[in-house]
Amino acid sequence: MTDQPLSIDDVLTTVRDALDRGAIQDAIAVLEQLRPPDQAEVFEELDTDDQAALLPRLEPDDSANILEELEDEDAADVAEQIDPTSLARILDEMEPDEAADLLGDLDPDHARRALAQMEEADDVRPLLIHSDDSAGGLMTSEFLVLRQRMTVQDAIQALREWSPSEDFAYYLYVVDRDNVLRGVVSLRKLITADPRALLQDIMDTDLITVKAGTDQEEVARIMSKYDLLALPVVNDAGHMLGVITYDDVVDVIEEEASEDILHLGGVLDEESAVGPVRTSVRRRLPWLYVNLVTAFLAAGVISLFKGTIERVAILAAFQAIVAGQGGNAGTQALTVMVRSLALGEINLRDTWRALVKEVAVGLINGLAVGAVVGLIVFILQGDPLLGLIISLAMVGNLIAAGIAGTLVPITLRRFKFDPALGSGVIVTTVTDVCGFGLFLGLATVFIQWLT
Amino acid sequence: MTDQPLSIDDVLTTVRDALDRGAIQDAIAVLEQLRPPDQAEVFEELDTDDQAALLPRLEPDDSANILEELEDEDAADVAEQIDPTSLARILDEMEPDEAADLLGDLDPDHARRALAQMEEADDVRPLLIHSDDSAGGLMTSEFLVLRQRMTVQDAIQALREWSPSEDFAYYLYVVDRDNVLRGVVSLRKLITADPRALLQDIMDTDLITVKAGTDQEEVARIMSKYDLLALPVVNDAGHMLGVITYDDVVDVIEEEASEDILHLGGVLDEESAVGPVRTSVRRRLPWLYVNLVTAFLAAGVISLFKGTIERVAILAAFQAIVAGQGGNAGTQALTVMVRSLALGEINLRDTWRALVKEVAVGLINGLAVGAVVGLIVFILQGDPLLGLIISLAMVGNLIAAGIAGTLVPITLRRFKFDPALGSGVIVTTVTDVCGFGLFLGLATVFIQWLT
Repeated sequence: MTDQPLSIDDVLTTVRDALDRGAIQDAIAVLEQLRPPDQAEVFEELDTDDQAALLPRLEPDDSANILEELEDEDAADVAEQIDPTSLARILDEMEPDEAADLLGDLDPDHARRALAQMEEADDVRPLLIHSDDSAGGLMTSEFLVLRQRMTVQDAIQALREWSPSEDFAYYLYVVDRDNVLRGVVSLRKLITADPRALLQDIMDTDLITVKAGTDQEEVARIMSKYDLLALPVVNDAGHMLGVITYDDVVDVIEEEASEDILHLGGVLDEESAVGPVRTSVRRRLPWLYVNLVTAFLAAGVISLFKGTIERVAILAAFQAIVAGQGGNAGTQALTVMVRSLALGEINLRDTWRALVKEVAVGLINGLAVGAVVGLIVFILQGDPLLGLIISLAMVGNLIAAGIAGTLVPITLRRFKFDPALGSGVIVTTVTDVCGFGLFLGLATVFIQWLT
Repeated sequence: MTDQPLSIDDVLTTVRDALDRGAIQDAIAVLEQLRPPDQAEVFEELDTDDQAALLPRLEPDDSANILEELEDEDAADVAEQIDPTSLARILDEMEPDEAADLLGDLDPDHARRALAQMEEADDVRPLLIHSDDSAGGLMTSEFLVLRQRMTVQDAIQALREWSPSEDFAYYLYVVDRDNVLRGVVSLRKLITADPRALLQDIMDTDLITVKAGTDQEEVARIMSKYDLLALPVVNDAGHMLGVITYDDVVDVIEEEASEDILHLGGVLDEESAVGPVRTSVRRRLPWLYVNLVTAFLAAGVISLFKGTIERVAILAAFQAIVAGQGGNAGTQALTVMVRSLALGEINLRDTWRALVKEVAVGLINGLAVGAVVGLIVFILQGDPLLGLIISLAMVGNLIAAGIAGTLVPITLRRFKFDPALGSGVIVTTVTDVCGFGLFLGLATVFIQWLT
């Protein structure tokens, strides 16, 4: 990146020094030399007290940008410490959808008092009813609607008079006399069209729209598929309620990917690698306890075969290989399925096709891995039967892994749960139980012939 | 979504029926009623032979759109079956960056012959030298550059005469007399400015640019952070080489997230849940073999304590709990670290801070889980010493999990490897070896007092 005169680290050090000396004005002077996203990056690293002291003294549009860039929780923590009057000034400068999200995260009393003092309260109030992760929660109420019988010249005049808080309004929306959305005109079209032409003659009528209740994942999928810069949200009558812009979609895609990655990894919610210990414990310990139940289940299966293990103790070493490989294969199948569901590459009606495929993959990989393991065990122990038993258990467990890896996320999705959350535990429980059960069970049946 | 008259499934059935009857014209007529991304969705489901038969007969800009939407490998498979002359017509309609990517994936001979017949070959040729996953590989060479001493009116005239293949040119780039990039003007600014103003007086000079060699992950991070619709690529002299548009970034973000998710899940490369079995086996089996080495390592640790297990066979059941919980905790730490690295939330200088944090989380979670496990084991077996041993082993293993979960991805990143790829195996190997070793080792030391 060129033209970036100051590094974030340098600024952070300078700002911290200034705050330590109590020289808030100096800290502000340094911060205001940065671009808003960089200001937010420095800001994030400060204590909440310092944040609350600084924020009301920055230019309101800088403060607004910073609050927009912070993680939702952090933004709410700071905003709660700012008096309602100062907060209202900042909220007025925020994009209405972001202001509504922030107000929704605040203590209701504090939110009500800030809202009461806002000049732009009318823009924000209708957005408060929508859930954060729906189209209604993502949309902004700042958009320009024009009549279809207007001329290009009039439209350009309207655009001159309109001053949105953000610069990237690329589309104008065109409605009929009943205010029903009929078409869209890009700025490029507007600039290059004959000034006397009517909007209805140059507008694009091939509209893609969503409802306020549409899930944000679906919104992201549509905007990404059709490469849309903006997506209008309409009600059942076809009236426009708002617009979702592409920057929100980038955030949604990153958010949904983070959620899938963390859920698959057994972490309940977003956390940063350098965040507080307390948060990490709270987001991981419940999961470890859930896992514990399944771990005791697997241990219970093993203990059924205690007598067998007493006679052939080396089985305790090899059982780990069967269960471990099953767990890996199950996680592979699960990962592919979760990602395919997230990207909309498959849906529920593909269940059967996906299942057949995973059984085939399990069988082939099971034979490939099972043959090698069987051979190694035969060489190590000099017992062909033990080699055969571990091979068979491996094939069986890898098929079970494919079945569980397919059906668990699909079943979760069918019942409207997140297919990434908890599926890992269930799949590895299946592969542990099957792996230990198959291997030790077969060994018990053939124990008299085992050397 | 409104105004979508035909479902993808219906169209697919109709197209397949038409192709079976040999009625290619009917298939084309149905396809051309759809939007290009929907055409691509139908197209993907067809056999390569049908695809190659259809593609040259569609409108070249529809064919171009379809090739852009297909997965890189699939697009190359079809393009190889189309004669160079027809292919050149389609490539002419593609965005230059996409055309260059496709040509790079083709058999060099076929690519050379198609390129030789292209009208837009000059736009595409300079892009061929850049790697697909760098800024140079993402950028398009279609952009409008204007002199800073031009008036707004002249700029609008230039815009009228310019006809890019895509509609979303939102920024105009302004250069000085040495062709060095100096500023940017949005269409909104252009429309609302005084027609006689000079571009240099209305342009935004706070430019963010990248070099052609910048990695696509870094490009996505910059565009997402600064909410950019387009990012100019410049050479060392400050001359513009191309522009990266936001739609490419959405693809990069999804691609990088997929890669991280699949790599963490032990899958080597992108695959779909309903893709061919052969591909899945090829992308998963190598990983299972890698895992096998580590599984035998863990089994080797267990076999060191064969004598202990012969005397107290129930240890074989409880060892699975210690290793399993360690694996889960390690995966949690690893997942958070990989995601934080991917989102640029942390970098290498935060290593120490992250490590201290993870050790603390490991200690706390280890004590919390260890106490419960110790108590349950004590109740089940009536042996307080065994309960204490499993508790201690659990605490030790969860600390090891935190350390491995932090250092493995950071070390991979430091040596320029993907922190998601392979880190899962290494971390679970550490937790298996530590878990089995600590638990069985302690049990061996205290075996005479174990009941």
